[in-house]
Amino acid sequence: MPLLSLDWSVEEQQIAHQAFKTAYERELAETLAQVKSAAQTIACSEDLWKLHDFLSAKRHEMDGKYDDRSPMLIFVFADLIKGGWMSLDELNGLDEQKLSKIAALTRM
Amino acid sequence: MPLLSLDWSVEEQQIAHQAFKTAYERELAETLAQVKSAAQTIACSEDLWKLHDFLSAKRHEMDGKYDDRSPMLIFVFADLIKGGWMSLDELNGLDEQKLSKIAALTRM
Repeated sequence: MPLLSLDWSVEEQQIAHQAFKTAYERELAETLAQVKSAAQTIACSEDLWKLHDFLSAKRHEMDGKYDDRSPMLIFVFADLIKGGWMSLDELNGLDEQKLSKIAALTRM
Repeated sequence: MPLLSLDWSVEEQQIAHQAFKTAYERELAETLAQVKSAAQTIACSEDLWKLHDFLSAKRHEMDGKYDDRSPMLIFVFADLIKGGWMSLDELNGLDEQKLSKIAALTRM
């Protein structure tokens, strides 16, 4: 069965939305903490542009990663779990087929 | 006499270099203070990307503005004086022709 043709029940969509939102807030919170910490130690132009490079990369990465269109969610969740921003447990309530596909993708 | 054909004595080059360096350090110090201050108040993604936008614009502006090639210095100094990063007094020791050209450019 193709990965992109999975149907999502209303309840599953709610679980997915909440897990997605939690992961985003978790990554954002860590990024805010990193920026606050880095900003306190900047002392020269190299430090300043290094902070700018970090923000450019992070923005590009987060804009691309948090894609909540249903056909992409299986891949997004696998990527978030691999990145440490979500655990598979937070997706409890999704059907077994989706959970096993996500788990398999995290091992690739 | 064309603006770009002005000759710079060794002494004038030293004065220009020092004034240029001082203005750069002054603008950098203010930028560092702005970033440290802004970073302490960021609380959401909009704040974070606003800080990123500020750094992108500042980097582009400073990379373009601080051009220390001799033919450009008259324009660079006029721009720095207009921006508040340098005063005409800091260029004392340059010949009168250069000072009057810079002063004229600051009024444009």
